[in-house]
This record gives sequence, C-alpha cells and structure tokens, in this order.
Amino acid sequence: MNSFIYDIPVKVYFGENQLCNLSKELKKYGKRVLLTYGGGSIKKLGLYDSVISEIEKAGLEVFELSGIEPNPRIDSVRKGAQICKDKSIDVLLAVGGGSTLDATKWIAAGACVDHDAWDFFSKWSPVEKALPIITVLTLSATGSEMDSGGVISNLETKDKIGRMEYPLLPKVSFLDPTITYSVSKYQTACGSADMLNHILEVYFTAEKDLYMLDCFMEGMMKTIIKYTPIAMAEPDNYEARANLMWTSSWAINGFITGGKRHEWSCHPMEHELSAIYDITHGLGLAIITPRWLEYCLDETTVDKYVQFGVNVFGIDCKLPPMEIAKKSIKMLSDFLFKDLELSDTFTKVGIKEEDFAHMAKKACGNGVINGFKPLNQEDIEKIYKMCL
Amino acid sequence: MNSFIYDIPVKVYFGENQLCNLSKELKKYGKRVLLTYGGGSIKKLGLYDSVISEIEKAGLEVFELSGIEPNPRIDSVRKGAQICKDKSIDVLLAVGGGSTLDATKWIAAGACVDHDAWDFFSKWSPVEKALPIITVLTLSATGSEMDSGGVISNLETKDKIGRMEYPLLPKVSFLDPTITYSVSKYQTACGSADMLNHILEVYFTAEKDLYMLDCFMEGMMKTIIKYTPIAMAEPDNYEARANLMWTSSWAINGFITGGKRHEWSCHPMEHELSAIYDITHGLGLAIITPRWLEYCLDETTVDKYVQFGVNVFGIDCKLPPMEIAKKSIKMLSDFLFKDLELSDTFTKVGIKEEDFAHMAKKACGNGVINGFKPLNQEDIEKIYKMCL
Repeated sequence: MNSFIYDIPVKVYFGENQLCNLSKELKKYGKRVLLTYGGGSIKKLGLYDSVISEIEKAGLEVFELSGIEPNPRIDSVRKGAQICKDKSIDVLLAVGGGSTLDATKWIAAGACVDHDAWDFFSKWSPVEKALPIITVLTLSATGSEMDSGGVISNLETKDKIGRMEYPLLPKVSFLDPTITYSVSKYQTACGSADMLNHILEVYFTAEKDLYMLDCFMEGMMKTIIKYTPIAMAEPDNYEARANLMWTSSWAINGFITGGKRHEWSCHPMEHELSAIYDITHGLGLAIITPRWLEYCLDETTVDKYVQFGVNVFGIDCKLPPMEIAKKSIKMLSDFLFKDLELSDTFTKVGIKEEDFAHMAKKACGNGVINGFKPLNQEDIEKIYKMCL
Repeated sequence: MNSFIYDIPVKVYFGENQLCNLSKELKKYGKRVLLTYGGGSIKKLGLYDSVISEIEKAGLEVFELSGIEPNPRIDSVRKGAQICKDKSIDVLLAVGGGSTLDATKWIAAGACVDHDAWDFFSKWSPVEKALPIITVLTLSATGSEMDSGGVISNLETKDKIGRMEYPLLPKVSFLDPTITYSVSKYQTACGSADMLNHILEVYFTAEKDLYMLDCFMEGMMKTIIKYTPIAMAEPDNYEARANLMWTSSWAINGFITGGKRHEWSCHPMEHELSAIYDITHGLGLAIITPRWLEYCLDETTVDKYVQFGVNVFGIDCKLPPMEIAKKSIKMLSDFLFKDLELSDTFTKVGIKEEDFAHMAKKACGNGVINGFKPLNQEDIEKIYKMCL
C-alpha cells in the first residue's frame, strides 16, 4: 500500500437546527458574501429566508447568483467570478446540491485569477488560492460539501471536466438531513447511485488495500443499500436521510482512498454522456457501473468481487468464486434498477450508439484509463454497447 | 440521534519515509521548538537522530524534555511548561506513544497560563489556547495523535484525570507504521486492547446509533482482531502495523461518536487502577471490559450484543439472542486473554480488593457514570470483584 497525506479540515455542522450557527461562521470570513443557488427550490423550502436571516444577523452585505444549473456550466462560473471581482466579495455561501457547490468552488478560484475561467479550468492551471466557501447542502450525492472537487460543463465545446484542488475545500458545511426531506424519489435514487459509485471506484482496485478502509467502504455501501429504499418510501425518515447524508460526504472526501493512485473509470465514461445528453450524473453512473464490473471480471480480478459479494450482499462464501462474483453484479443491478427504480439502459434514456466512438475517445483522454483494469477506447466502446 | 459538530483539522502524514516532511511543517509554526520524548527508546531506534536532522534542516532552535513516564505525571507537565516559558518556545514536537503525546498537550496548554499546571488541569479551567503541537507516533494505542485528549496522573494525590480540549489537537501527526516494528508483543497487545475499548465505549450505548458509524466501528474492531495477532507474531508486518496504526487514530478522534453524549464507563474505572498501581492502561482495560459487558447484559440491552456478536465475531444470527450475547463476551475474552496473551484477572497483576471501595467511589465522581448502563459505586465495586 502507498503512503498518503490525510488533510480534510472541513468543519461540519451535522443535524437539525444547526443553521443557527451560520452567522457565527460567516462573520469569521469577511463583510461581503456572495450567495449562490440553483433554480429557486430553496425559496420554496423556506431555506432562502433562513439563510438571509443568518446573513443579516452576521451583518454581512449580500449579493446573489441564482440559476446555477444541474451539470453546472462554465457560464455560471464566469458570471460568479465577475461578481466577486466587481463587488469585492470576501466569502461564498453555496446553498444547494453538488451542482451549486461545484460551480461555487470554481467561482471561488476564478475570482482570484485574471484569465478566463474556462481557460484556467481546462488548461489545468494550478489553483493557488480561492475565496473561502461555506456550504449548506440540500442533496446527498456528490460529496462536494467535504471534498476539494468540482465538475464543470462547457456546452459549446461539449466538455465536462472534473478537478480536485485543495484550496477549493469548503471551510464549513451545514448538513441538515431534514433539508433533504423534499428531495424527490428519483433524485434520492440518483444521489445514492452516485455515492455508491464513488465507493466502488475506490474499492475495486488493482492496488493493495488497507483492510480497515475496505471495511469502512463496505459499511458505507451497506448503509446506502439499507437506507435508500427507506428514504424513497418515507421521505421524512430522519434516520435514513441522516445516514445517507453523512455517507455522501465520507464516500468521496479522500479518506477511503488511503494512498491509492489509480484513476476512476466510470466517472470519465459518464461525464461524456452528460456532457452531450445532459442526463443526471447518478443515473448515467447507475447504468454504466454494473457493466464496467462485468467487463473487468476475470480470474485475476475475481477475489475482489467475492469480498464485495460476501461482505456487502451477504452472499454465501462457500459458493464458487466466479458464481459469487456474478451474483454480486446481479444483486448490484437489482438494487439500482429494481429497488432504486432507475432506468437500466442507454436506450431508455435516449443515448445513441452513434456517439459511442467519439465519447469513448474523449473518456480515455490520453489513450487509457488506468483504473481497476486499464481501459482504452475500444474497451470503453464495448462497455457502452453493453449499456444499450 | 443527536446533532454534532465534526471538526478534526489534524493533518496526517501516513506511511514509510514521510518524516522528510517534518522540517517543512515545523517551519510553519515558529523558530524555537521543544522536543519531548520518553525513556530514550527513540535514540535506540535512530528516530531521535532523524528528528534532530529535520529540526536542523528547518533551522529551528531546539530544546528538550526527555523522561516522560508511562502514565505521565503532572511533574513532567510542570517541567515542560516552565521550559516553554523560559525559552519562549513556539512549537512542541512530541515523539513517542500516548503518554508523551498526552503530557505534551498539557505542556502546550500550561505554557499559556500563569497558574500551576495541576490546578489548571484538575479544576477544569477552560483551555483557551495552547502552543501548536506536532507529533511523531511510536505506538498504536491511545489515539492521542488525532484527538484533543490527554490523561495526566498525580502520584501525590493518586489522581488520574483525562480531559478533551479542542486547542490541544495536534496540528500535524506523522504515522509511520515501520516505527512501530520494535514495539514489543506485550505493548502491541495492550495498545490493541486500548483501541478496542475506545470503540466499545462508544458502540455499546443506550443512545440511538447512526448505522453508518456502527458499521465503521465494527470494521475497526474486525481490523484489530485480525491484525493484532499478526503484528505480535511478525513485528515487521507492514500491513498489520499500518492497519493498527490508522485504526488507533480513528477509534478515538471523535468521528465515531456522531453526537452521542453518554459517558465512558471502563476508562474511569481503569484510571483509578493505574493511578494507584501504575499498571499499563490497555492491560487494565482488557481485564475490565468483558466484565463490564457481562454486568450490563440483560433483556433491555441484549440487542446490541447480538449486533456485536454477529457482525464482529461472525456468530450465527439464528441462535437465541442471549446465547449470542454471552458467546460474544466469551469470544472477546478469548481474544484478549488467549490471542493477545494478556493477564485476565486483577489478582494476577496484584490489584487488591481492599482498594475497591475507594477506587469505585472516585471512578463514579459525581455519584454515577452515565454510560451504557448507569453505574454507581456499588455497581463498580461489583464489576471490580468480577475481575478478581
């Protein structure tokens, strides 16, 4: 196993009624705040009013950027960065799901440089600083509330790029499970598919594992499997929402990686889908993930599937390894497509074979994704075809 | 379940050869460092030379406090705090196990106040500031490298007091599993008994659990059970040492608590032992823990034992609950006293019944320990008697 640096200084207020601490935290970071949010659901929820009241309590001057899209666009980032410069913003307050949070991170970075945000972002210029970010999470999914990552789409160039940069870590995040009571059945399912994939991308690896972290990952997967159907059936089940919410953060904040350096596989494959088709990220991942696992299964990789099947799905460890492995993929598929009621094929969501070659070429960027198994363009096209 | 604040900004360098980053980290915190350590084993290990070389590389002026005892004494804290004041120390560098780290934390706090360290400590004056602390861990056990706690003994008053205070969190900790290769079989066993108890004190609770965190705890317990015997048999097994080391930090850094507010039970009971008899903390805990579990088992608590037995020890879930519960305690005892080869009674380590009444009275402080089950003096005396 590899060495690693653990460094996640995000402060989290977790639970109901924690938002009363927002003013205290905001005050630490300056006088002028940019509040960012999406399509306005936070107004319906009453969350907007609560947040504004906290900002007033803190005595900060507030500016707003609303309308941040799902699969957030570079245009929103440009707009936000410009407001930060024009209004000398000190701190960003993102209220929303992963899209709002991701866009806000890149606004925070874009505000500190002179060049165009997309150039800065897509040319992989190092992020040396960013404005401080506070988040109020409304959807358990991307883990953006506790990680340094952000994914941005450019509809002109049909690019969707994700990057992780330390200065983009939120300073403080508010996680109130009751805020997610209003998340729809479908979005709850997509969020859980996203989280589950975050874990699987790390769990299935050719590198040596730290057993303790594998146990944590199995625990998180069991949590998602146990509580997503409950949250879908009883949207205001606090226990279910709380378990999913805290899992979303820990699935991707870097902790479980424990020094593994391999690349993720499903995420780049999915980003190409949503760059062109603008589908929900979690749905794209749900369709791809079981096919990816099926594609990578062979005698050299089977042991990990056995561990997964036995420890996560409780499959009898006395069965032949290959049988356990196949059964584990089947049980994962059943969870995603039956329990979570997600569409199970590209065809059903309108993704067409004619785009596969182009998407596969972009997904493997430099020629190959060095993940659980190395995947080149041809491999990826095959996986896409399995999704039809 | 309760709300909570998660706030653990400790940076950890984990793995072999990470110590080369020490100079870089030291430099951030000032010009004058107090190096603290124990009985000199770090000189035999060559670790002392490596650390001094990093300090020199950073260009810091170094002062030393050596001879910090196991079950560290208030005298060492007083001595260290005085050096900090006399020499205008900027940063503390603790190299050792939990004892050295705990003492160093209270030196860091004591250096910032005028009154006597024991008064400050035992009168529960709030800790408002402390000098920054960097640690290099040599023993996986107490978790002091990533928590805000410290336990100090006063041999004159026969007190042993533990406190958690946010300013005492280390800024940076270096966890190199290879440094623990030289830890003896006995100390490895005691360290694991300590970690295991840190988890059990949180796991067995009357409060509502967050399932995800229970899964993490079960994973850590399985890690300890799997790897301690390996580390004892093969002291230089990297995988075993690495798993134990990272588990020691996460067992007690506050993460698994997830808002539970109940008091710990075995720790105060054990602190009274080691305050009088100066025995190894982990050994005392090993003897007490299974008896405490036995004492608390009844029809109202049995479910948690079932969960423990099934998920940690793999006991057949179809057995009657009370049978699973008793079997789980038996398997825990076998692990501690057979696999870890620890003494299983007070009698064997020279602890006498004549002290029970006095120790029990002090252990429950204000009259009752509000833990898994409330324990008053009489309860604690009964548990002590079960340990004979």
